[in-house]
Amino acid sequence: MDRRRFIGGAAIAAAAAASACSPAQTNGETPAAPAVARRRTRELRMVTTWPPNFPGLGTAAERTAQLISQMSGGELRVRVYAAGEIVGAFEAFDAVSTGVADMYHAADYYWAGRSPAFNFYCSVPMGLNAVETNAWLDFGGGQELWEELAGQFNIITFAAGNTGHQMGGWFKREINSLDDFRGLRMRIPGLGGEVIRQLGGAAVALSGGEIYPALQSGAIDATEWVGPWNDLAFGFHREARYYYGPGFHEPGSALGLGINRGVWDGLPSEHQAIIRAACRAANDLSLGEFVHQNAIALRVLKEQHNVQLRDFSPEIWRRMIEVSEQVLADAARADSITRRVYDSYIIARRRGHEWGAISEAPYFQHRAMLFNG
Amino acid sequence: MDRRRFIGGAAIAAAAAASACSPAQTNGETPAAPAVARRRTRELRMVTTWPPNFPGLGTAAERTAQLISQMSGGELRVRVYAAGEIVGAFEAFDAVSTGVADMYHAADYYWAGRSPAFNFYCSVPMGLNAVETNAWLDFGGGQELWEELAGQFNIITFAAGNTGHQMGGWFKREINSLDDFRGLRMRIPGLGGEVIRQLGGAAVALSGGEIYPALQSGAIDATEWVGPWNDLAFGFHREARYYYGPGFHEPGSALGLGINRGVWDGLPSEHQAIIRAACRAANDLSLGEFVHQNAIALRVLKEQHNVQLRDFSPEIWRRMIEVSEQVLADAARADSITRRVYDSYIIARRRGHEWGAISEAPYFQHRAMLFNG
Repeated sequence: MDRRRFIGGAAIAAAAAASACSPAQTNGETPAAPAVARRRTRELRMVTTWPPNFPGLGTAAERTAQLISQMSGGELRVRVYAAGEIVGAFEAFDAVSTGVADMYHAADYYWAGRSPAFNFYCSVPMGLNAVETNAWLDFGGGQELWEELAGQFNIITFAAGNTGHQMGGWFKREINSLDDFRGLRMRIPGLGGEVIRQLGGAAVALSGGEIYPALQSGAIDATEWVGPWNDLAFGFHREARYYYGPGFHEPGSALGLGINRGVWDGLPSEHQAIIRAACRAANDLSLGEFVHQNAIALRVLKEQHNVQLRDFSPEIWRRMIEVSEQVLADAARADSITRRVYDSYIIARRRGHEWGAISEAPYFQHRAMLFNG
Repeated sequence: MDRRRFIGGAAIAAAAAASACSPAQTNGETPAAPAVARRRTRELRMVTTWPPNFPGLGTAAERTAQLISQMSGGELRVRVYAAGEIVGAFEAFDAVSTGVADMYHAADYYWAGRSPAFNFYCSVPMGLNAVETNAWLDFGGGQELWEELAGQFNIITFAAGNTGHQMGGWFKREINSLDDFRGLRMRIPGLGGEVIRQLGGAAVALSGGEIYPALQSGAIDATEWVGPWNDLAFGFHREARYYYGPGFHEPGSALGLGINRGVWDGLPSEHQAIIRAACRAANDLSLGEFVHQNAIALRVLKEQHNVQLRDFSPEIWRRMIEVSEQVLADAARADSITRRVYDSYIIARRRGHEWGAISEAPYFQHRAMLFNG
């Protein structure tokens, strides 16, 4: 996914309106009675990189804000601003850094221009899945390095959502060999785009709202976005029938809450605890929501739209992995903090692999007998 | 795992003491300053089914309690009681139901005697993994049914921890065919034990503290417990060298917080929101902690203790799956609520499979090329 410059596109706004769901209606929350305004109220301004209530992304921001407001009994009121309302999506980081806004909800790889280290706090090619990301952040040293990194910009950051696995994308023609990447015009951002370039393709940067028309006109041959839930809403299946999964480029994209350091330090400890727990709660809900909604949307794509599911060949995967490793290693050379983040992340990835290889991964394969006969 | 009757065993207490870690030291929390006691304080009594600070289980209870206390600025003070302090582990449910205690932290399958439906709110053979469980609870109707089920007993329940995948267990001899289960004396509780019985083995109920001596004396031939982190602490590798994974019987065991319904209904909405979010935050932290710690302990088991990792053969898996399906279907016939929980759960399992089969599962297999050459 990449939401750069797509904010405000009419197609997105329509998709958001069509698919948006109120968290309160879907997650089994006990409805909260109106909070008694017995204490002093402080308003915190949260800027986001999402259209309002955009499914899964904007809703994670709204949910985090609501939790903070509810838990503080109204002492903290978080007002959420969609991209463009106070500042543009890509000014959210500077706005929080300078105190123009109090906090942001975003995907931290948008800040990769400050340091490539920020890529690792969303998702990188052949990287960690969502649960492995949580393990790394909370127990493997990732959070401390994130705070050091963002602290250089007067910001403290917490995970506050995760899309889970993102699909490999929509292709007009089947990809049967590495040769099929040569000249392929694919909409894919960031480090994943760099991998496609090194495979001989043309990685194109397009905003969300621009993708569908580009696919329709033939300006691009392929695109990735998020996963079945968000992709179905955009209708890519009408223009490209081959849906490749899994993806190599965003295996578990974290969403982050960044807070101005001065604002954070000035909060009483219970409000700090509330914000921290609201982020964790949003993180927990978000992944479950994507798993649930992606499964439902996938079935619609298969049964109602005759989408053809494909996986890349082992030969393609082997080369994709080689190139991805090189792209990550190159990124790590940018600065000292990226080097240390990379080293820590690579250790976490090995741990995730070693445990997963004798637990969830083979369990899933065995359980598949139930469904595959 | 099964903690029935193991509470208070000296071996456990020692293991807990040796392995216990303060969440505040390990999860990167910002230390909270002492809360200002400016408001009225209410003490809530949390009974648990765990020894104090037992790694991963008792610590999840402590963490939930601390979050509630911190976020409420001390208005709610949750005092955690280990099993046996106020009531025995298996009286925790009745204690909360009748108001002797305000809340419990436990694995809800301990209450299967009230209704087999409670099994599905911890883990069942060939069931959901941890993330799929969250998806089912929060978005697939699981939480509503859980509240209906526990509501019959004057309790409201929330997920507040998850061990992730649990291993298949420790075996003194290799299991190469279904015949090897005949007469096998294995310590394995609950519905998993029923599967072993139907395979011709003897499923033995032993408390945690009793397992090691039974393995040492030859009274049992095999045992399951939790996973590398908790298993290493018990030292089972010294008595049984074959460690089977994945397990079939507890693919993602949820821990639950149950609250007396009258206590819950009497809380102001911000305190309800705080308790709910504390549970979700503990849920999020718990899974990451098990993934991180299991990976580290697994390496110790392999490299320092020469443990032999094994998987059951496809023939064994096929039969285990058949029997597991029958055991679940039989359980579903017990009462109306179990039937409805089962039906909802089975739908969630199919969804989890369909999405996982084109995302996380094959991604993991492809990524393994990085480690397997």
